Amino acid sequence: MSAGTETATAASSRNDSRARKLATELFDGLRSATADDVGITRASYGPGESAALDIIEAKAQALGLRTERDAGANLVVTLEGFEPQLPFLACGSHLDSVPRGGNFDGAAGVVAGLIVLAGFKEEGFRPRRTLKLYGLRGEESARFGKAYVGSSALFGKLSAADLAVKAADSDRTLGECMREVGADVDRVKDGQPLADPKRFAAWLELHIEQGPVLVARNLPVGIVTGIRGNIRHRVVECVGAAGHSGAVPRWLRHDAVFATSELITHLDRHWRTLLERGRDLVITTGVMTTDPHEHAIARIPGMLRFSFELRSQSKETLEAFYDLFLSECRLVGDERGVEFRLDRRLESAPAIMDPDWVGRLKAIARGLGLPDEEIPSGAGHDAAVFANEGIPTAMIFVRNEHGSHNPDEAMDISDFLAGVAIMWDALKEAAA
Amino acid sequence: MSAGTETATAASSRNDSRARKLATELFDGLRSATADDVGITRASYGPGESAALDIIEAKAQALGLRTERDAGANLVVTLEGFEPQLPFLACGSHLDSVPRGGNFDGAAGVVAGLIVLAGFKEEGFRPRRTLKLYGLRGEESARFGKAYVGSSALFGKLSAADLAVKAADSDRTLGECMREVGADVDRVKDGQPLADPKRFAAWLELHIEQGPVLVARNLPVGIVTGIRGNIRHRVVECVGAAGHSGAVPRWLRHDAVFATSELITHLDRHWRTLLERGRDLVITTGVMTTDPHEHAIARIPGMLRFSFELRSQSKETLEAFYDLFLSECRLVGDERGVEFRLDRRLESAPAIMDPDWVGRLKAIARGLGLPDEEIPSGAGHDAAVFANEGIPTAMIFVRNEHGSHNPDEAMDISDFLAGVAIMWDALKEAAA
Repeated sequence: MSAGTETATAASSRNDSRARKLATELFDGLRSATADDVGITRASYGPGESAALDIIEAKAQALGLRTERDAGANLVVTLEGFEPQLPFLACGSHLDSVPRGGNFDGAAGVVAGLIVLAGFKEEGFRPRRTLKLYGLRGEESARFGKAYVGSSALFGKLSAADLAVKAADSDRTLGECMREVGADVDRVKDGQPLADPKRFAAWLELHIEQGPVLVARNLPVGIVTGIRGNIRHRVVECVGAAGHSGAVPRWLRHDAVFATSELITHLDRHWRTLLERGRDLVITTGVMTTDPHEHAIARIPGMLRFSFELRSQSKETLEAFYDLFLSECRLVGDERGVEFRLDRRLESAPAIMDPDWVGRLKAIARGLGLPDEEIPSGAGHDAAVFANEGIPTAMIFVRNEHGSHNPDEAMDISDFLAGVAIMWDALKEAAA
Repeated sequence: MSAGTETATAASSRNDSRARKLATELFDGLRSATADDVGITRASYGPGESAALDIIEAKAQALGLRTERDAGANLVVTLEGFEPQLPFLACGSHLDSVPRGGNFDGAAGVVAGLIVLAGFKEEGFRPRRTLKLYGLRGEESARFGKAYVGSSALFGKLSAADLAVKAADSDRTLGECMREVGADVDRVKDGQPLADPKRFAAWLELHIEQGPVLVARNLPVGIVTGIRGNIRHRVVECVGAAGHSGAVPRWLRHDAVFATSELITHLDRHWRTLLERGRDLVITTGVMTTDPHEHAIARIPGMLRFSFELRSQSKETLEAFYDLFLSECRLVGDERGVEFRLDRRLESAPAIMDPDWVGRLKAIARGLGLPDEEIPSGAGHDAAVFANEGIPTAMIFVRNEHGSHNPDEAMDISDFLAGVAIMWDALKEAAA
């Protein structure tokens, strides 16, 4: 056991055994209800996600907490304060997952919130402010291209175009899938907020780290300073001209694979340059394929489809690089006689965490004998949506091995309980 | 109608009307028997190819010619010479096609040969040398990765590894598919020649041009000087590491798409350099795909599969560029922490056409009032296999619009008859 983990275990010893028991029971229950091959699948607005909400809701009720579903079909668990007219403290995370993903991505934050609210209730702590736990839906972009759907619905931020997008795994639209799990799509589609951001005193989200930083630095937890936003195209189509691979010379070719390779190589060069200048940026083309109905070894590829994603903590860097991308599409397209056709641009704004809350979490961590290191979030989180609504927002990251979006993610329950201990003290302090 | 086409029509007027009727009947019969959506499909060692052999064989028999199937299941049509102990003159081409390809690619050469042999028989011409027409199978690489299977079988050039390759459209091997259409696979698999190259006095193949040169230069026919060989990998697998697209910084990535894009861009630069130095070379990656079971917009691609093909008229250029390819795989792999895994290397040797035959065909073309322009063949043809067996080999290209390996190929029947007229005179001269 590492030094960091020992500290974490010591710090959380106070409410450790009850919390550990509840966490283990809930994680095991979620895993077995949504197991899929070696991982778990809780598709956004699909049956696995609904099963996860049901499990959390049933446990919350059994522990004496009030529960409801909002008009976006998210789960809301409430511990009433004795001054309910005050803005309430909210916590939670999402309960969906990527296909065959890991059990902790999202769920850890919901389980953490339930441990805290149920713990307060059990020990007889009466908060001044009401506490609310959200089990959000649709955070992952795997099924509909768009991330943060559940939290966006909460604040009236889904457009008709968003709701018309078809699922990657069926012909049904996001709107149809939301309706199927009980969302009031007529309210959502008009952009009506389901909650007033002014009623939120804060949003606090615990989440596993999805990158390798906490593991590399041997820290059980970290306090998040900001969240990367992104710009995406689900499908860019490079259209050239097919032809016999032996019979068309280089100067007459309009080869979609060579053109796209050049485009990506140019963008990679720009990316490196911007990193050297200290900008925050990652670029990914996760999906790429020639036309399976037409492609052949001896055929010049007339078409190549690929996805394109930029992420940065800076909106300015995102927009500047996106302009470079458009300009390179035109340049390479002109040079090679191909056309890059872009589908609808999708985007999520970057977000900065609230400095007061970051300070509070760091102080609490130090008080608990835990490290108080700051860490930026490369991955996106629902917290970004709350922050961009003007709600004071903070996040606690928990160490996790092997990254996420895969079945091998591995969070030590002691590290998780260290994060819960920080959340416990922070919410108690803010609610009192 | 172009000037070239008028000349061609005039030149072939002698036996034009009978030849035109037979050509039209055979092309129509082939098209209707193997129609598939907008094109035709005669998969190598599949039912469409067999149907094409049956149509040609039935017509040859009806016209009084002797037919047989060799141990490789190719069709052989014979017009016996009065000195049958002399090496015989062979002509023909292949009867298979790519999926949803065009009706003339391959079949034109077989129909041309049948018009000539049947014409000689009908007009009572008694050749000194025997004439043989081959309707070859398995020339296209679309189904088994390997080209020229039928002609390679003829000369004992198929290895056990070739016969074990699985079809792109099923789980059956080449050997199994050959057996199904009647090949004696036990003879083929031991590398036994089914024919003695010394018995061939020549191989003459008429084929549509698969590139744009004759159309661009307004020539109905061309005399081929050489055929490009190739080196191929059906599947190169770039193996990196998957990860969350937002959470892994550039310096920790092992991105298969970025690595392969860089590889292709480097190869493209080398290609341009070699062309500027006057080398003959084309490079194609016709198939490229991330793993459909794993890929996602927000996931760093840990794997990318692609095909790789080089073609050149020079064996030295092929080998030199292949070395560059291997070296770039290592360099880019080391630089980016990925590995390029290559499947079995497949190759076809380049071939030079016989200078005496090229001279004879050019003289005959001039005599017929046709252009006598030389043209290299970018695409591969069975003729390359015959040439590399030491058989004096020649090819006549016929103008064809829209390239080949697609349903839009368009050969004017008058251009075809111009090619047949050259073949007629050349075979008559050589057989007399």
